[in-house]
Amino acid sequence: MPEWRKDPVVDRWVAVSTERAKRPTDYRPPAEQKKKERCPLCKGHEGDTPPEVLAFRRIDGKSDLPGWWVRVVPNKFPACRVEEEDRVITEGVNVKRKGVGAHEVIVETTDHEPNLINQTEWQIQEVIWAWRQRSLDLRGDERLKYISIFKNKGSVAGSSLEHAHSQLIALPMVPVEIAAEIDGVNAYRESTGTCVYCDLWRQEAAGERTVIEGNEFLSFVPYAARFPFEMWIVPKKHEADFGRINEAEVRDLAGVLRESLRRLAWTVFDPPFNMVLHTSPVNDGSGGEYHWHIEILPRLTIMAGFELGTGCYINPTPPEIAAAALREAEERRRELVTTVREVTAGV
Amino acid sequence: MPEWRKDPVVDRWVAVSTERAKRPTDYRPPAEQKKKERCPLCKGHEGDTPPEVLAFRRIDGKSDLPGWWVRVVPNKFPACRVEEEDRVITEGVNVKRKGVGAHEVIVETTDHEPNLINQTEWQIQEVIWAWRQRSLDLRGDERLKYISIFKNKGSVAGSSLEHAHSQLIALPMVPVEIAAEIDGVNAYRESTGTCVYCDLWRQEAAGERTVIEGNEFLSFVPYAARFPFEMWIVPKKHEADFGRINEAEVRDLAGVLRESLRRLAWTVFDPPFNMVLHTSPVNDGSGGEYHWHIEILPRLTIMAGFELGTGCYINPTPPEIAAAALREAEERRRELVTTVREVTAGV
Repeated sequence: MPEWRKDPVVDRWVAVSTERAKRPTDYRPPAEQKKKERCPLCKGHEGDTPPEVLAFRRIDGKSDLPGWWVRVVPNKFPACRVEEEDRVITEGVNVKRKGVGAHEVIVETTDHEPNLINQTEWQIQEVIWAWRQRSLDLRGDERLKYISIFKNKGSVAGSSLEHAHSQLIALPMVPVEIAAEIDGVNAYRESTGTCVYCDLWRQEAAGERTVIEGNEFLSFVPYAARFPFEMWIVPKKHEADFGRINEAEVRDLAGVLRESLRRLAWTVFDPPFNMVLHTSPVNDGSGGEYHWHIEILPRLTIMAGFELGTGCYINPTPPEIAAAALREAEERRRELVTTVREVTAGV
Repeated sequence: MPEWRKDPVVDRWVAVSTERAKRPTDYRPPAEQKKKERCPLCKGHEGDTPPEVLAFRRIDGKSDLPGWWVRVVPNKFPACRVEEEDRVITEGVNVKRKGVGAHEVIVETTDHEPNLINQTEWQIQEVIWAWRQRSLDLRGDERLKYISIFKNKGSVAGSSLEHAHSQLIALPMVPVEIAAEIDGVNAYRESTGTCVYCDLWRQEAAGERTVIEGNEFLSFVPYAARFPFEMWIVPKKHEADFGRINEAEVRDLAGVLRESLRRLAWTVFDPPFNMVLHTSPVNDGSGGEYHWHIEILPRLTIMAGFELGTGCYINPTPPEIAAAALREAEERRRELVTTVREVTAGV
């Protein structure tokens, strides 16, 4: 008996299959083909990218040479650029703006490693600091209204480079998905007097959809997950702006994010996924109500005509089954390792 | 110099690459693997599907036996079902409804042919009549508020069956994308006193983004196309409800739709695509303002973290280049056929 579930923030309905639910082992994401071309993101290939806009490196290190551990460069094929003049042009019913904005690549590690989860927690902390610093720097340009930070892992999820990296696109407008979430947050506060994301993480903590609870962050499968094994990582502190993350939070987030992604990889065979940071607009003068968070969207199903035409989704794996599998992933991995050891030792 | 283009109806922005534009020949969609399993949609296999809910067949024909030319059956793995009782259940911040709805498959041809474009115009007219009849029948159930008709072609576009078919999902709510379009239509009318889709097709007719102009329909590449070679087919008559399509319109739509899809296939190597019919809600008592239309969404690019997180898109092929290629497709195909004939004849 399928059921329709509504996202608590936006008007998005998901048909969740409960009768013929797909279990973790029903998914077999395609194996990635190893790329053979020279990787422009590897240490020693700094000349293959446009000059860096940020790098964490040894004090005595020189720009665009090895010695860095996290490096941020402009995208070689940008969707938009910061140099453009901001002009709005109307042609009948059509409206355009010249492509003001920025498009950057955050190189998450020096070596050619596709998986962020194989980095140390310390390295992931440094990646989060780089996201934060670019977000703070770019908002200095008052034409920019939103800074989108995201990660595409695997070619099915839209990644064209194998080497672990995330991306940043700074926009001259507040995008429609974020505007809809802000409307949802405001409507909820009007009716209850509280923040919907604060109520949400409290309701989901230590429940059937929890994945990991850290000191500062909760990772859980949302009730109306669009995608099988979708996870949200929500800070417990009510804060609109990711840019105000502090040291204790960066440390906790690195741990919760790494562990969430590791469990995803163990549960459904290292699947392609998108990760998106949702945060408040900048330079919009609203000082708006919001609650920043991260969404992890595994790409094991295909968005087809129904999803594209309606904004509704079909999720073949109930969130409660997904969360249980993600919670047990560590245990199952240990069992597997033990079995392999026993078999190898001839026990 | 990329530019941001806004959809005229909803608040959706698209970054259109103009500098490093991808031309038609830059796309190579993956070849589909021929499926080997028995096809449940083929003539003679009627017993492989649930009993039909509609079939166009010879007067003396029996249900669920050959003799039909278009057949509609319930989806064997439905996202929702019409038998369910409609109940809304709230659990803290979470809301669900039992899966009231319907999910049907429209079998577009008797023989195992993946491509609707290889059917005659008459056959496509019959498919459109089937869409209309199911839409009219299902709205008799007052719990249903929206009837989504769509088509997924190719596995990349989410199709699991090769045999040409479309689908229908009837929903107990107005989906968010349609609600947003209705808001856009209302806002536009408030400011100009006219329908945005009426103004749009008039502005796009005989222009640089036109693909085909029929008597009753215009096919064009929208100014803020999300996808390379995206096309919209808009009826010239202002009409909210697809269910009120008449005979002359069905004839014209069959021709314009077939020709639009043929040109898409010739231009970019028979790509995977989604087709979605956008129409007014039913049983919502609003008698609302809208203008029904069809959107064809080729799947040559991947929706990644940026698109999923913001609702903005990146389109690497400017709509004007796409439209020119689609307009010239017939001519180029003729040249190709002539060349092949000359080569074959040893000229």
